[in-house]
Amino acid sequence: MLHPDRFLSPVPTVRTIARRLYERTKDLPIVGPHGHVAPALLAENAPFPEPTTLFLSPDHYLFRMLYSQGVAMESLGVPPDGPDGQDVAVESDPRVIWQTFADHYHLFRGTPSRAWLDYELYEVFGVSKRLTSATAQSVYDQLAERLQEDAFRPRALFDRFGIEVLTTTDKASDDLIAHDRIRTSEWDGDVRPCFRPDALFRIADGGWNDELDLLRAATDADISDYRGFVAALEDRRTFFRQHGCVSTDHAVETLATQRVAEAEVKAVFQRALRGEASTDDQAVFEAHMLMEMARMSCEDGLVMQIHPGALRDHHTAVYRRFGPDKGADIPLRTEFTRALRPLLNAYGAHPNYRLVVFTLDETTYARELAPLAGHYPALRLGPPWWFHDSIEGMLRFRRRTTETAGIYNTAGFNDDTRAFCSIPARHDLARRVDASYLATLVARHQIAEEEAQSMARALAYDLVRTTYRLDEETTAEA
Amino acid sequence: MLHPDRFLSPVPTVRTIARRLYERTKDLPIVGPHGHVAPALLAENAPFPEPTTLFLSPDHYLFRMLYSQGVAMESLGVPPDGPDGQDVAVESDPRVIWQTFADHYHLFRGTPSRAWLDYELYEVFGVSKRLTSATAQSVYDQLAERLQEDAFRPRALFDRFGIEVLTTTDKASDDLIAHDRIRTSEWDGDVRPCFRPDALFRIADGGWNDELDLLRAATDADISDYRGFVAALEDRRTFFRQHGCVSTDHAVETLATQRVAEAEVKAVFQRALRGEASTDDQAVFEAHMLMEMARMSCEDGLVMQIHPGALRDHHTAVYRRFGPDKGADIPLRTEFTRALRPLLNAYGAHPNYRLVVFTLDETTYARELAPLAGHYPALRLGPPWWFHDSIEGMLRFRRRTTETAGIYNTAGFNDDTRAFCSIPARHDLARRVDASYLATLVARHQIAEEEAQSMARALAYDLVRTTYRLDEETTAEA
Amino acid sequence: MLHPDRFLSPVPTVRTIARRLYERTKDLPIVGPHGHVAPALLAENAPFPEPTTLFLSPDHYLFRMLYSQGVAMESLGVPPDGPDGQDVAVESDPRVIWQTFADHYHLFRGTPSRAWLDYELYEVFGVSKRLTSATAQSVYDQLAERLQEDAFRPRALFDRFGIEVLTTTDKASDDLIAHDRIRTSEWDGDVRPCFRPDALFRIADGGWNDELDLLRAATDADISDYRGFVAALEDRRTFFRQHGCVSTDHAVETLATQRVAEAEVKAVFQRALRGEASTDDQAVFEAHMLMEMARMSCEDGLVMQIHPGALRDHHTAVYRRFGPDKGADIPLRTEFTRALRPLLNAYGAHPNYRLVVFTLDETTYARELAPLAGHYPALRLGPPWWFHDSIEGMLRFRRRTTETAGIYNTAGFNDDTRAFCSIPARHDLARRVDASYLATLVARHQIAEEEAQSMARALAYDLVRTTYRLDEETTAEA
Repeated sequence: MLHPDRFLSPVPTVRTIARRLYERTKDLPIVGPHGHVAPALLAENAPFPEPTTLFLSPDHYLFRMLYSQGVAMESLGVPPDGPDGQDVAVESDPRVIWQTFADHYHLFRGTPSRAWLDYELYEVFGVSKRLTSATAQSVYDQLAERLQEDAFRPRALFDRFGIEVLTTTDKASDDLIAHDRIRTSEWDGDVRPCFRPDALFRIADGGWNDELDLLRAATDADISDYRGFVAALEDRRTFFRQHGCVSTDHAVETLATQRVAEAEVKAVFQRALRGEASTDDQAVFEAHMLMEMARMSCEDGLVMQIHPGALRDHHTAVYRRFGPDKGADIPLRTEFTRALRPLLNAYGAHPNYRLVVFTLDETTYARELAPLAGHYPALRLGPPWWFHDSIEGMLRFRRRTTETAGIYNTAGFNDDTRAFCSIPARHDLARRVDASYLATLVARHQIAEEEAQSMARALAYDLVRTTYRLDEETTAEA
Repeated sequence: MLHPDRFLSPVPTVRTIARRLYERTKDLPIVGPHGHVAPALLAENAPFPEPTTLFLSPDHYLFRMLYSQGVAMESLGVPPDGPDGQDVAVESDPRVIWQTFADHYHLFRGTPSRAWLDYELYEVFGVSKRLTSATAQSVYDQLAERLQEDAFRPRALFDRFGIEVLTTTDKASDDLIAHDRIRTSEWDGDVRPCFRPDALFRIADGGWNDELDLLRAATDADISDYRGFVAALEDRRTFFRQHGCVSTDHAVETLATQRVAEAEVKAVFQRALRGEASTDDQAVFEAHMLMEMARMSCEDGLVMQIHPGALRDHHTAVYRRFGPDKGADIPLRTEFTRALRPLLNAYGAHPNYRLVVFTLDETTYARELAPLAGHYPALRLGPPWWFHDSIEGMLRFRRRTTETAGIYNTAGFNDDTRAFCSIPARHDLARRVDASYLATLVARHQIAEEEAQSMARALAYDLVRTTYRLDEETTAEA
Repeated sequence: MLHPDRFLSPVPTVRTIARRLYERTKDLPIVGPHGHVAPALLAENAPFPEPTTLFLSPDHYLFRMLYSQGVAMESLGVPPDGPDGQDVAVESDPRVIWQTFADHYHLFRGTPSRAWLDYELYEVFGVSKRLTSATAQSVYDQLAERLQEDAFRPRALFDRFGIEVLTTTDKASDDLIAHDRIRTSEWDGDVRPCFRPDALFRIADGGWNDELDLLRAATDADISDYRGFVAALEDRRTFFRQHGCVSTDHAVETLATQRVAEAEVKAVFQRALRGEASTDDQAVFEAHMLMEMARMSCEDGLVMQIHPGALRDHHTAVYRRFGPDKGADIPLRTEFTRALRPLLNAYGAHPNYRLVVFTLDETTYARELAPLAGHYPALRLGPPWWFHDSIEGMLRFRRRTTETAGIYNTAGFNDDTRAFCSIPARHDLARRVDASYLATLVARHQIAEEEAQSMARALAYDLVRTTYRLDEETTAEA
């Protein structure tokens, strides 16, 4: 049911060229340098329990859309993980939830979720019927049957998907036991952690001291002052690197980078320890810690990623009942030219530094990010992120960045997903859209088709490996 | 002279599909949920006096463009309705004005005004010659002749255009007598008022007390304090609902929503009564009153519309001579994520609340509006507004919102015009562009053609009826 | 090696029409109303020394991209003109530099630099091999040989390129001797200066007093106070006009226009003379001087250009070693609606005033600039600037401005380059892209092909002449 030319331009010459380009990238291995799959999934390798848990529960792209059309979160079985969630009763019959989902499947027309889901249903699971209200239960049956087969366990799917590297996202204090179990198992899948210390920088947040305790527990360090805190972070970065980690990740609501004088940052840290840090203190601290993370990256070679500009948990009532990541994170206007200047001036030409920047504000593609990436050696542009990980979103990204930064200052694709079975769907869509974009350049006689072939391969495979230094050992400076 | 495939994509497969989709929507009734036609036009049903008055005088899209190229407002017969207008002499011969317009018709090449005008001339009025300098007077003659026929009176055109519902925009203090006359006439045209109380919220404006007096005159309420003011507004909403009103409309220069403590808002209101309200007071009051309007909508079911971000009367000299709405309103950058948060947190999941948001800042489509509409049940995105009500503007809207919000979180089309004869032209253009957009999704194999058929109908007809609750009685909560 | 249909849309009907439209504009003369070619080049008319100096050294588009991929500025022979440049050793062998460039030529795939370079190599210089690592030296040989021919001297190329007018950019204190030499030579090339006084308005800059001394030296005026300063500027404008100047140019980081009371501006100027001006003072002074420049333009008829929104020399270390204009200028978000309001209210309808505005913030095209240009008679929109002078950039500009402002409120093309041989390449690309854009309007049946022919000619030739008043004598008001 999937058309072989899907997502390619309908312009005849462009489609013909795109088809040839895609033919050369479609079977390349998948390298996932950034995502949110739980490593325990692959450590345990247990069968997925049933279709609803596999498809819907981890995917806020999906229940978000149904919620926006008046379908209650409760009826979708979304677990009530918020602080006020104890009194929330949710639907527990996965077949009932699946039916509700199928009844609203039309809402996804024209969205990437629809493209991914179709791929998962028809390509990954070989479902033989279109998902509709009428077929919902028999589609569920087909899926449930497949999930009992060994070929549909996580590791088997990982291998079938052609995943060469999969990166998870892990708290700075994580023990990485799941990663250990994978590494010491007989299975040779390459699953790597990513160091994400955000929670430790949010010093005005009520939960900060708990996070600090987790960090203390994970290290032997005495974290009674700022120096100890920095030493503990360095310690954890070493631990992560020993577990195959090649990157760090940093999410901030408002982007700023600024080194603060030692005396001031020490004072801020003491206020935080006393539970007295203000939101202004936190802004100063986050801006400073991004500088520190860059400094450490110059030393240990970890590739630094920044994901700025999402206002998390915009809908307080949903957060209080269901917790974070429930489809209510809304982008903000974001500024890079001034915000990154201190960081790029300090480290942007350092030979051991690599920074990958993502944005939810597409206006910065051509105005700020492409010009920055077209100058600073350390900077690469991450692929279209989150809401923009879609056909039109990807086309906008390429059209607005390539003319100024070229493609070689971009970081290849990453799927950024917690929905495991959507990984091959997402890479396939990206490869098709990139092939189509490049085919337009060929059809307009901007480049030769041989060049486009090499570029298509770079976008699908080479750039992600070089950007994330997967072919180098990440080595600390002498 | 109108090509049957006009405004459809020139890509062959896309055009073929688009043609089939458009074929299914072109004859659907027109539902206009928001616009600026004067209801007296349909209450009186007098013949239009002559072509210049009909085509040019109400349309600031047109004289704006000529003015930008050095044609004096005076020579276009624009009435000098500004505070300094008494000394302004304007051209009064409609044939001379018509000639000036025809002499500059080339300026509209590539604009939607050109597309609408061509439709009006050749389709609505059956003019047999292209409008040029040379043909100007004979085209005028043809139009003038038509305007004397009964078939070209307002109600006859309304019926010929296939208008099912037409909504006007009316001051909160309006007596709605024109609407009464229409409702009690033998003619069955469905013309509805929309409640627009903006002027009553601009407490720092010199004319505010006059507006308040009009409100007093329209109600029996004693408006000596804030409570009385709110009661009067509630009273007027009831009155509007009794006249078929289903919606309210709110224009603000800078968007903000924030409930203010009762004591503070009372004090602000007293300062306003004394003529001492500052622009800061007004900002506070407007933000608060948007919250109040939302509260009332939850109670009475009126659909709330917000049109933010136009700096009105940018050119002071033109305003002082010719008054407002003279083509000198210029958009501003607009922010929604933070600005709507208080309102959406309070009411965005209320089952009786419906909010339709418009923007002149297209950067917010993908970054803020689509993510918000893809989460909050109450929110629908209004169609591309004003400057963006055009082929490329509509394509940008669909391309930037559909992938995140789908089409079912959008509000269908509205023509938003005071140029009565342009109504069918505008809906026709929108249906063609939407058909073309959907055809691209089919040609890229994102959706099946049957799905696109259903979507095309939704965009042309169904969504506007459901968004504005035209199939429900709007009922107050028990 | 250049395809005859290059840069035209791949949609079959569009391409066919575009080809016909381009056929009518390709041989029109080139009018360059804004650029950065050194006038001495044409005054001296010496042979270009060798290929690397000609192609690479003046073109920060090129070494920027190589630098971003880790190629040291030093290895590209970029002269170390910054304050710390004295200790920087750079590669001096042009053949080595050329090889490095050729080795990295793939980086430009999909960029306009690639399109321009291909045109220069294959069309201007008739090189017979594709530039690759392997062919680098023999391509260099071919170019070097050509450069010794008289037909490849600057004036001969100027004539061959079909340049009708070329405008340079000159400091307010420039003696215009190179322009004098051209005018008094037997060669009839039309080369005009442009008055750019920016440096004199940056009163908080360390170099301001030196600039003021240059102004003093260029005039006999006593510049001991603000009045003397203004008189000196008026004097220089007259001098420039006597040398064929038709325009002024103004670059500001953050755009603001605001007339300041005489007493205040005098005080600010005195602080500047004492070396005590703050950055706030400078902001006030720049905003005021833009108003003064507009006032003078009303009097002397010089067309005023504003180029706002570039943060210059973002990378301090590169600036300190290599000086300004090294590919590290990064755009900023820019606002026009409020910022231009004082200026446009004061002068925007003055019959002798003409303002051309450029932007690096494409979000302002549809939101602010097109609505402003669609109203104010004095305002024309400059073509896509700098990073946006590219296929996609030009398409975005036309798609976002035409529907609101039409094409007749735009200023035609300008090449804005210091790379002399890229001039015909840039105009050719612009004519192709505009032809393709207009062909889409024809193929969508928005306009007739005869109209598109007239529009194509306007965009390629007529509009730049009328915008910059090249067919009028610029005359001072009586």
